[in-house]
Amino acid sequence: MSILDTLLGRPLASEEDHEQRVGVAAGVPTFGLDALGSAAYGPEAALTILIPAGAAALAYVMPLSLTIIALLAIVYFSYRQTIDAYPRGGGSYTVASENLGRGLGLLAAAALMLDYLLDVGVGISTGVGALVSAVPKLGPHTLGICILILVILTVVNLRGVRESGILFMAPTYIFVACLLGVLGWGTTKALLGGGHPQPVVSPPHPSPHAIAAVSAWLLIRAFASGCTALTGVEAVSNGVMAFKDPNTKTARRTLTVIVVLLALFLAGIAHLTRVYGITATEPSSPGYQSLLSMITAAVAGKGSLYYITIASILVVLSLSANTAFADFPRLCRAIAEDGYLPRFFAIRGRRLVYTEGIFVLAILSGGILVIFGGVTDRLIPLFAIGAFLAFTLSQAGMVMHWRRTGGRRSKLYIVVNCAGAIATGCTVAIVLVAKFVDGAWITVLMIPLLIFLMRSVHQHYQRIAAESRVRRLHLVKEPPPVAIVPVSRWDRASEAALQFACSLTPEVQVLHIECPEEHGEQSSDGWQRQLEEATLGSEISPPTIVTLASPFRFITMPILEYVRNVEGKYPDRKVAVIVPELVSAHWYHYLLHNHRSTALKALLLVKGNHRIVVINVPWYLNS
Amino acid sequence: MSILDTLLGRPLASEEDHEQRVGVAAGVPTFGLDALGSAAYGPEAALTILIPAGAAALAYVMPLSLTIIALLAIVYFSYRQTIDAYPRGGGSYTVASENLGRGLGLLAAAALMLDYLLDVGVGISTGVGALVSAVPKLGPHTLGICILILVILTVVNLRGVRESGILFMAPTYIFVACLLGVLGWGTTKALLGGGHPQPVVSPPHPSPHAIAAVSAWLLIRAFASGCTALTGVEAVSNGVMAFKDPNTKTARRTLTVIVVLLALFLAGIAHLTRVYGITATEPSSPGYQSLLSMITAAVAGKGSLYYITIASILVVLSLSANTAFADFPRLCRAIAEDGYLPRFFAIRGRRLVYTEGIFVLAILSGGILVIFGGVTDRLIPLFAIGAFLAFTLSQAGMVMHWRRTGGRRSKLYIVVNCAGAIATGCTVAIVLVAKFVDGAWITVLMIPLLIFLMRSVHQHYQRIAAESRVRRLHLVKEPPPVAIVPVSRWDRASEAALQFACSLTPEVQVLHIECPEEHGEQSSDGWQRQLEEATLGSEISPPTIVTLASPFRFITMPILEYVRNVEGKYPDRKVAVIVPELVSAHWYHYLLHNHRSTALKALLLVKGNHRIVVINVPWYLNS
Repeated sequence: MSILDTLLGRPLASEEDHEQRVGVAAGVPTFGLDALGSAAYGPEAALTILIPAGAAALAYVMPLSLTIIALLAIVYFSYRQTIDAYPRGGGSYTVASENLGRGLGLLAAAALMLDYLLDVGVGISTGVGALVSAVPKLGPHTLGICILILVILTVVNLRGVRESGILFMAPTYIFVACLLGVLGWGTTKALLGGGHPQPVVSPPHPSPHAIAAVSAWLLIRAFASGCTALTGVEAVSNGVMAFKDPNTKTARRTLTVIVVLLALFLAGIAHLTRVYGITATEPSSPGYQSLLSMITAAVAGKGSLYYITIASILVVLSLSANTAFADFPRLCRAIAEDGYLPRFFAIRGRRLVYTEGIFVLAILSGGILVIFGGVTDRLIPLFAIGAFLAFTLSQAGMVMHWRRTGGRRSKLYIVVNCAGAIATGCTVAIVLVAKFVDGAWITVLMIPLLIFLMRSVHQHYQRIAAESRVRRLHLVKEPPPVAIVPVSRWDRASEAALQFACSLTPEVQVLHIECPEEHGEQSSDGWQRQLEEATLGSEISPPTIVTLASPFRFITMPILEYVRNVEGKYPDRKVAVIVPELVSAHWYHYLLHNHRSTALKALLLVKGNHRIVVINVPWYLNS
Repeated sequence: MSILDTLLGRPLASEEDHEQRVGVAAGVPTFGLDALGSAAYGPEAALTILIPAGAAALAYVMPLSLTIIALLAIVYFSYRQTIDAYPRGGGSYTVASENLGRGLGLLAAAALMLDYLLDVGVGISTGVGALVSAVPKLGPHTLGICILILVILTVVNLRGVRESGILFMAPTYIFVACLLGVLGWGTTKALLGGGHPQPVVSPPHPSPHAIAAVSAWLLIRAFASGCTALTGVEAVSNGVMAFKDPNTKTARRTLTVIVVLLALFLAGIAHLTRVYGITATEPSSPGYQSLLSMITAAVAGKGSLYYITIASILVVLSLSANTAFADFPRLCRAIAEDGYLPRFFAIRGRRLVYTEGIFVLAILSGGILVIFGGVTDRLIPLFAIGAFLAFTLSQAGMVMHWRRTGGRRSKLYIVVNCAGAIATGCTVAIVLVAKFVDGAWITVLMIPLLIFLMRSVHQHYQRIAAESRVRRLHLVKEPPPVAIVPVSRWDRASEAALQFACSLTPEVQVLHIECPEEHGEQSSDGWQRQLEEATLGSEISPPTIVTLASPFRFITMPILEYVRNVEGKYPDRKVAVIVPELVSAHWYHYLLHNHRSTALKALLLVKGNHRIVVINVPWYLNS
């Protein structure tokens, strides 16, 4: 256990829960990294769509960004209300389930699960991709670095919510300070320069022959791409229980800080893009520069501030998956408590986090990283849909919630949530249409599959509950079982098993499978006499010896067949198979023996029936 | 079991052994593919070393080949004698162990194991490498094709010795026929052409500026490389038991066929190389052509015979690993019977082959293929050493054997084996020196490691045998055990477990771990009354209920601690932990429950002691 203690910290008692909770300062890195990091790719995604429009795109940057910020504001106000209404954590799943019915709840759950899963893969690989384009030497190690970051995130999150918040505080706030600094300085310069500041490092000119008309369709696609900036905003509402008391207040404040920062980022980026006349560069072309890199260079030149800012962006992007690690396990816990996911998701591990959810997220997203070789550009279109679908269902659920509960200000609340539902619902439709061919269809396929899986799990649990229900405990006096002890040779282990068998029941059979060609195998000749001598003078009646030949050299199958046979012969008795087992203190000795007893136990469990009981008598080697 | 039957064939009874044996015709593909296939790379390896000598190399081709053929003849005669002397299979391990002592026997075993392991990896990847250079489109799938061939070889060999022999007969004999045809036709042309036949397709001219002096060192290195043509010759002597009766005679004939064919190949290749003036091309250069490809083109042109011959070479190279699959498991069986490898190697599986040896070979060589990405050129220097070391020890062992047994012709035998030992011993020394830097040092490192492992296994078995020995069985009447039934909630499974506990012993404790935050967990309030009602009217004394709080949310650890505690309190009683378990017919339901009982059983086995017995009471869900 000491390795675990070093790696993950000592186990925490349930009462220590309160000490593990986070305040605003640690809450922002835990639940906000995803949202804040998306400032680095959301606006750029929108501008990339506008590349064919050339310099004409600049006129549309501000209106597009303001639309997205307005959407952010709507989402913010409605999630604030959700936090108040659901102080035990009101993710989209909970809100939709309780107010719109289980079906739509599961839809929200599936959408969010998919969103988080993709988020981890895409977040890490985007960060590493940027790192690799800065240090091309690292290229061949892309996947390795991705996996390393995934392992770090997993371990840190297994250590607990608080530790991940504190550990990621420094990079988060350096990033926030740098980006606010660059944007503020740039805006000041623009004001002083009368709206036309001189860039320190000029951004590349837009391609001159790219002058497609700015069609409505192009703008809609740009909006759909830009919406990725909003993913991650729902995380806080799901994790209300992880915040310091008064937890709804702390959660609300954290959400406010995250949303205000994100809005400032989006507005600042849009403003500087326009005044410096920056357009996006083609991501796969050799002259590619990220939008934030061009803005920072234009404002501050390529000095030390530039490098610190770029480095902090890389780190925050790589760590943005932390939000998924904080929230995915909580989402799974909520679903598992309703019986739609395996129960182990609802159990908190040694550090008061939902360990199994963290493992499942790490394994699945690790799988995505391995399959895509650490380059997941093609998955980016997929993951806004999940987030916005969950937003929509959550808002719609809140509308129903206020209608049901009523209250003084419920009319105002209904209006806010209704606006949110309509806005985000339209966004889902836009993103779905604009990105369908690019990969959104995968989401459309995966969501029903996930819902089907969750429903199957639920059905299974219900069936088991019905089948195994005990209305009234009932115990009767049963005759002692018939004991069968499979023995291949006499050693301390088989002696101990036989000894235990004889103390259980007067009816003991020693079963020997004769496999003549096996090297070193004993024949059972003379065993009867040995057993009679061994029981002489005790009150034990000597066991019977049964010898079976095994022409096919199988050992466990003939034992199973014989056991079933005996079970058929004694319809009113249980049959206890007593399996001797040599146990060594060293795991690597496992290869040297133990195979047969393990195989026999497994076979009896799988192919047995309720009257066949397996008794494992261990005998320990000194080490 | 029906999938297994389809894939591997029905189980074979031990008595069916005789029907599974192979004659000469099937014996050549089974035990000879490695030796015959090496004609395709042995001579080429020698000529590649001579490239720096340019056309001057041609003068040395024939003497070099004759030396190798002479070595082959010596090895052949001494293995013939080994077959006669060891009709139950006399591999180098057996012969060296019995005549030179265990230490040298293990040296031979380690050398051969390493040889076979590398043989599979190198054989498959050489074949696939040739295929890929013929069909460059397949390049990205190199590793996939290698693994596919490995899986095919594994499955075919699991089906039995006879099946693999019959299945690989066609490619083997097509290869033999093509190669003999080409070599015979070429030789005829050379005779008709007065020693200077006109090539149909001229081979590339040797590089003109390559005129290094042909030093003795160069010749020695060429000889060392050419010796790879001899690997695989020892396989027959180890597999004597797999041949039809009279098995020594059939084995001897098979060995004769293999060696005569190989000698013809080597002589023919050397002859045609000289008369057509063919020199090797640099393997990694763009103009690379294999030696056999150049010879075939020179003799027959690039017509259909050319393509059939090249294709058959590819197939035979890829399948040459079959020899290792036939022989490695037999070698492991022999070592395991002496207790130097885990015992499971000595057990024949359903199809009368040593299944575990086949699996281990497949997994380890699969690992080599994956690590080297299917390109194992750099391993080629490693594997002649193992084979020649085993040859030498086997011959030396035979010298001691004849000295001990004496007999009419023993003096002649001693001379033959002595010559063999000296010749192959010198070859080991030459290969080791010539290839040390190229990778032979890895073999030098791995062999002691393998010997150490085998010695450790032996020590372990001896220690266990001593520790667990029972001189005289002794059984006494014991008091009934104390039963502990861990119950988290009442269902049919826990009811069944409690029922069984009550029928075993009057002393039953129901153990409930209270983990308050766990969703859906029952509290044990009221259980006492329930149990009293349940036992009312029966002769059963109601079980005691023990409730433990688990502040750290662990379930299995507190159970273990409690069980140990009880065990300490009753020094003269056994403690039986009765583990209820829901069992479902579907494996995928495993994810949904079962975790705790499995974990508890494993923990009790590993951390328990000889007075703690685990009883597993299953309860089956209807499916």
